[in-house]
Amino acid sequence: MAFQFTPIGTVHSCFKEKFGIPRQGALIPESKATIKILPPFNDPNTMRGIESYSHLWILFIFHANPTKRFKPTVRPPRLGGNQRIGVFASRSGFRPNPIGLSLVTLERFHQSNHDLFLDIRGADLMEGTPILDIKPYLPWADRPNQSSAGIADTPPSITKEVRFSAEAEYFFTTLPAAEGNHLRNLIRQMLQNDPRPAIDHHRSPQKIYGACLYDWNIRWKVSEGLMQVVEILPTHAQK
Amino acid sequence: MAFQFTPIGTVHSCFKEKFGIPRQGALIPESKATIKILPPFNDPNTMRGIESYSHLWILFIFHANPTKRFKPTVRPPRLGGNQRIGVFASRSGFRPNPIGLSLVTLERFHQSNHDLFLDIRGADLMEGTPILDIKPYLPWADRPNQSSAGIADTPPSITKEVRFSAEAEYFFTTLPAAEGNHLRNLIRQMLQNDPRPAIDHHRSPQKIYGACLYDWNIRWKVSEGLMQVVEILPTHAQK
Repeated sequence: MAFQFTPIGTVHSCFKEKFGIPRQGALIPESKATIKILPPFNDPNTMRGIESYSHLWILFIFHANPTKRFKPTVRPPRLGGNQRIGVFASRSGFRPNPIGLSLVTLERFHQSNHDLFLDIRGADLMEGTPILDIKPYLPWADRPNQSSAGIADTPPSITKEVRFSAEAEYFFTTLPAAEGNHLRNLIRQMLQNDPRPAIDHHRSPQKIYGACLYDWNIRWKVSEGLMQVVEILPTHAQK
Repeated sequence: MAFQFTPIGTVHSCFKEKFGIPRQGALIPESKATIKILPPFNDPNTMRGIESYSHLWILFIFHANPTKRFKPTVRPPRLGGNQRIGVFASRSGFRPNPIGLSLVTLERFHQSNHDLFLDIRGADLMEGTPILDIKPYLPWADRPNQSSAGIADTPPSITKEVRFSAEAEYFFTTLPAAEGNHLRNLIRQMLQNDPRPAIDHHRSPQKIYGACLYDWNIRWKVSEGLMQVVEILPTHAQK
């Protein structure tokens, strides 16, 4: 028995690759994405009343994860990457049915010709992510009075301080002020969460990491426990 | 482009038919269901650590809804059944991809031979519902600090008082005490939410409704604004 689903939308995101995306949108409220609704679902009536909701659930496909043989356990980053928990006790993207669930903030619904768009914030969604469903967040149904969540009861601790090089600071001044501020905040939130794989935590401080946000390649290193943004390059000049 | 999913589990529920199930499990905390994990996903390691979570998200298929041509709007019961809102502004089961999302309370994980079971409470899930995924509820990611949800900001108002006939009261005494209390509470919660379709709200008070809970057919009428449980019959004696 199997069920077949067709995406109702696709994501345009500040995140152009998987590396750098925090796990759960709550960790990166500055992030911006737009869901474009795909035909035949692009009837504006599908969105009637959606502006009255502050938050939406997005059901999406973890499309960038390679399809692997089913594994019953995963190694969550917050346990250092070497302890295993059950896949159904985790929100990992490597699961029998690779469906993700994210709570996002709704900024705006807009239309252009026959296209429908939902602008959202605080989404851990990568460019090109296929969307299966959009549902309103209902506080009375989706919010238990009391809950406990074991090791995942609180957000992963943010330990990393972020510094920008003089070159990076100069780069921000070349952008329109609002755009520069947004990119600066976005980089800070991305790096605070330390996107490095756990096995890299004892790497040489010489290693330069890169992750793409919009059309920019953010290049940083980790030195003396600080996340140091070295430079910001246009993606087409990526080294 | 389409994606294919295989159910990882199936539901055994107190609700044996669609009629009577409140919309959202929060409305019926007394409800009980068990998810049975299906092969090849019935490796107990998939559940390692799950007992540390009080609440789980259940992603399921609205399998009892007839497959219809895509409609962009739905008529939510709380708007009296005659006002339309967009399908993505609602949690209706009639949606492009008929995937449901329910927050439930985890009671217990247990095993028997090669079978894995999750006992849950507060689930608006019908017998036989195919389960696509089980995810832990993470308060820091799934709970916005502030939210608004327009017409759906509060639960639907419960207006119906429930009365049991002498015959129904006698029936409870024939069951073990805990079972009788549970069934009584469950019936009360089901009927408080008035499961009748909106078009029936001005029907003759003579009409007898029936809905199945476990192996029992609960028969009631609506008279003078009260939900009056007439009798409780074994399902096999259903009229």
